[in-house]
Amino acid sequence: MKVLSGLIFFLAISLLPAAGDPLPSWNDTASKASIVAFVEKVSDPQSPDYVPQELRIATFDNDGTLWSEKPLYFQALYAFDRLQEKAKADPGILTSDVLKAAAAGDMKGAMAGGDKGLIDIVNVSHSGLTVEDFETDVKTWLTTATHPTSGRIYADMIYQPMVELLAYLRDRGFSTYIVSGGGVHFIRAISQEAYNVPPQQVVGSEGATNYSLVDGKPTLMKEGGLQFLDDKAGKPVGIDRHIGRRPIFVAGNSDGDLQMLEWATAGEGPRLGLFVHHTDAKREFAYDRDSSVGRLSDGLDAAGGKGWLLVDMAKDWAVIWPGKQ
Amino acid sequence: MKVLSGLIFFLAISLLPAAGDPLPSWNDTASKASIVAFVEKVSDPQSPDYVPQELRIATFDNDGTLWSEKPLYFQALYAFDRLQEKAKADPGILTSDVLKAAAAGDMKGAMAGGDKGLIDIVNVSHSGLTVEDFETDVKTWLTTATHPTSGRIYADMIYQPMVELLAYLRDRGFSTYIVSGGGVHFIRAISQEAYNVPPQQVVGSEGATNYSLVDGKPTLMKEGGLQFLDDKAGKPVGIDRHIGRRPIFVAGNSDGDLQMLEWATAGEGPRLGLFVHHTDAKREFAYDRDSSVGRLSDGLDAAGGKGWLLVDMAKDWAVIWPGKQ
Repeated sequence: MKVLSGLIFFLAISLLPAAGDPLPSWNDTASKASIVAFVEKVSDPQSPDYVPQELRIATFDNDGTLWSEKPLYFQALYAFDRLQEKAKADPGILTSDVLKAAAAGDMKGAMAGGDKGLIDIVNVSHSGLTVEDFETDVKTWLTTATHPTSGRIYADMIYQPMVELLAYLRDRGFSTYIVSGGGVHFIRAISQEAYNVPPQQVVGSEGATNYSLVDGKPTLMKEGGLQFLDDKAGKPVGIDRHIGRRPIFVAGNSDGDLQMLEWATAGEGPRLGLFVHHTDAKREFAYDRDSSVGRLSDGLDAAGGKGWLLVDMAKDWAVIWPGKQ
Repeated sequence: MKVLSGLIFFLAISLLPAAGDPLPSWNDTASKASIVAFVEKVSDPQSPDYVPQELRIATFDNDGTLWSEKPLYFQALYAFDRLQEKAKADPGILTSDVLKAAAAGDMKGAMAGGDKGLIDIVNVSHSGLTVEDFETDVKTWLTTATHPTSGRIYADMIYQPMVELLAYLRDRGFSTYIVSGGGVHFIRAISQEAYNVPPQQVVGSEGATNYSLVDGKPTLMKEGGLQFLDDKAGKPVGIDRHIGRRPIFVAGNSDGDLQMLEWATAGEGPRLGLFVHHTDAKREFAYDRDSSVGRLSDGLDAAGGKGWLLVDMAKDWAVIWPGKQ
């Protein structure tokens, strides 16, 4: 009975409503109230809007939704650093002006090629190493390198209110997934520690990976070459391939997430779609329609008619990042 | 306290060792003993071979491992039926001898194109409908159409001993995944009902899927065109993309599963790899090295040296399929 007593205690604790506010970093605004009302009604077996646990799927974009993305996606900044290192050993890999600019740390020149240029930079810099070595290297970089404007370690630029939202959803029986335009291996390097999201719940863009025996040892090598772009119309496709169920809770911050919100919230039954709106120039960055990174324009136009929530970072969030601001 | 009392009862029941044998359809042979010994030691916190629950990942091939695959993969037989139907409306889709043979139900002619021919048949027959409609149609077919030699409903040709093995693994804290060369949507149509494996735990080959608004309604259409082949060296790649962790328990039946077993069992710590060996001409089918479907040759050669288990269907399994044999 000793084991059972311990379990009862554990159960009693975990079954009680959380002692405090599950979202302490959210201000008590209408946004917070909408989120809490939705989560409670779909997870309450007595509610007419109850949704069975296996269908309580939540998907979150990453860049600009779970962590910062300015002045540029962190994966691109990582790619610049890696490209610079690789080019020292073999300058011949810099076969375009965009690649040369990236290796020189010239952000404007590197971005002149648009998304296609960024994909080239990622392909060249992220190839020729094993998946394990890549993830180890990314993790080291994210937890030691510092961001050019905030001076923070990159891993400390996750959004504390969203970390709390993920935990709150899981506490209410949701499965929480990241669905990112960024690379699946890049995000997995930090998803467990940063967000408590395990590797099998990360959906992302996919470069070519090659399996072979290297000196007799089974090895998965990253080879570069984009095989799946998990962005825009690719997001519903990625979710279908990976999860096979339509999410009922979905969060993004840019037009790259528009189709994901559109698809998820068009399903039957209760649905919640939200955009994190970057309104806080003082504490983070303020941008939407005119930004080359994380542009939110069609999404802003659609949100009202679709009933999507616009989370106003300046008004709705008491803090942005973890720890001392 | 009423709720807690109920929970205690539930917990007490689920924490007790299963009252009976967890693998009643397995004969008491060395194979069963090896499997049970492995599962118990990795799930027992007191064992030196204990593996934390989040790393207890098990992956299973489907065709020939979880259900029958002779005279041909069920998905191919489904594709023949669908192709025949589609060709009635539009004979112009039959652009090759292989496609013509498939639509005529000429199995030999349809197989003359090898795996490439089968992929063509699948591509042409599985396109131009939504993912939902496809899965509904597959489910109807699998639960009503009958197999050419056994006369059974296809869904009744799952292997009862493997269904028990999946349940036993889950009971011991494993996450059970299907990792199949077959299409992910085809398997998901039946995976929950047949194996208790939810859609997000099915990894398979992937055709092109296109997201768009059709009459204003967000729609995922199957378009044909193979984008990812989850077979041979593709299986470790598919597992890495989808799960992001190396399995510790892995089951297959053919050379298409060789790399999955090789990769999984080369990891550190306790690992179990097994091949289901089709030895039972009387109750099912007997084949290995010389079969065009589910050929097991390199795998047979490698098994001894690698310490992989060969499950002998004739000797190790008390029954093959569910219900009356």
